[in-house]
Amino acid sequence: MQNLKSTKAEIELGNKLMPKFDENGLVAAIAQCAKTKDVLMIAYMNKEALDKTIETGLVHYWSRSRAELWLKGETSGQLQRLIELRVDCDQDAVLLLVEVGGDGGCCHVGFENCFYRSLSESNLEITGKKPLEPNCD
Amino acid sequence: MQNLKSTKAEIELGNKLMPKFDENGLVAAIAQCAKTKDVLMIAYMNKEALDKTIETGLVHYWSRSRAELWLKGETSGQLQRLIELRVDCDQDAVLLLVEVGGDGGCCHVGFENCFYRSLSESNLEITGKKPLEPNCD
Repeated sequence: MQNLKSTKAEIELGNKLMPKFDENGLVAAIAQCAKTKDVLMIAYMNKEALDKTIETGLVHYWSRSRAELWLKGETSGQLQRLIELRVDCDQDAVLLLVEVGGDGGCCHVGFENCFYRSLSESNLEITGKKPLEPNCD
Repeated sequence: MQNLKSTKAEIELGNKLMPKFDENGLVAAIAQCAKTKDVLMIAYMNKEALDKTIETGLVHYWSRSRAELWLKGETSGQLQRLIELRVDCDQDAVLLLVEVGGDGGCCHVGFENCFYRSLSESNLEITGKKPLEPNCD
């Protein structure tokens, strides 16, 4: 974790993972399908969720609404297997390249990913697909 | 914007953009290169930044550190031209598919995108590239 002694160079160019958790103890976590490069979702991780993700290779988030650790896919089967974890320049966000289990979906609304609507003129249009295959493409 | 009367169905399946700004008046905004599908960065937008982005077609963020509206690329030339704007299920995050101007870079550290380090064993390794061409691939 970052502390008052962490220098800008250590944070931005160092080889040490030192996440900058916000005032709620969270970093943003973006999940991207490793195969299709579709952005699947954004959620948040506290230290425990990040540690568990790295240890187990299965993505864990912190559910802000339920205030609990959340193994993604535990009930739906839509597990996210971690292929690669990247961190951004100031280490307050991580990018998770994942392989999706179960039906290949991700979003509770039933689409392949959470970004299933695009702005067209001034309205949203559904452009996302429902999962058909047992992976995310 | 969402209000107390917004129903779950309107938010999740409706055709109206009704962002759920957090207690600081912000939504998360992920920028993705429309061409390569690389995730470039994550930042935040307040209502003004989102409105300006839609109106002008150039991505604006809210700088939390400087507490001001920020036209991305205004000084660096690394403008982000909006190709498509997507919103997630609960409308508290947007995904911006963009075309990058200037030298094609995005990150102030000098890499093509902010996610230039990957976790390998227990250390970070630089895997990102520096921009070479006037677009983001």
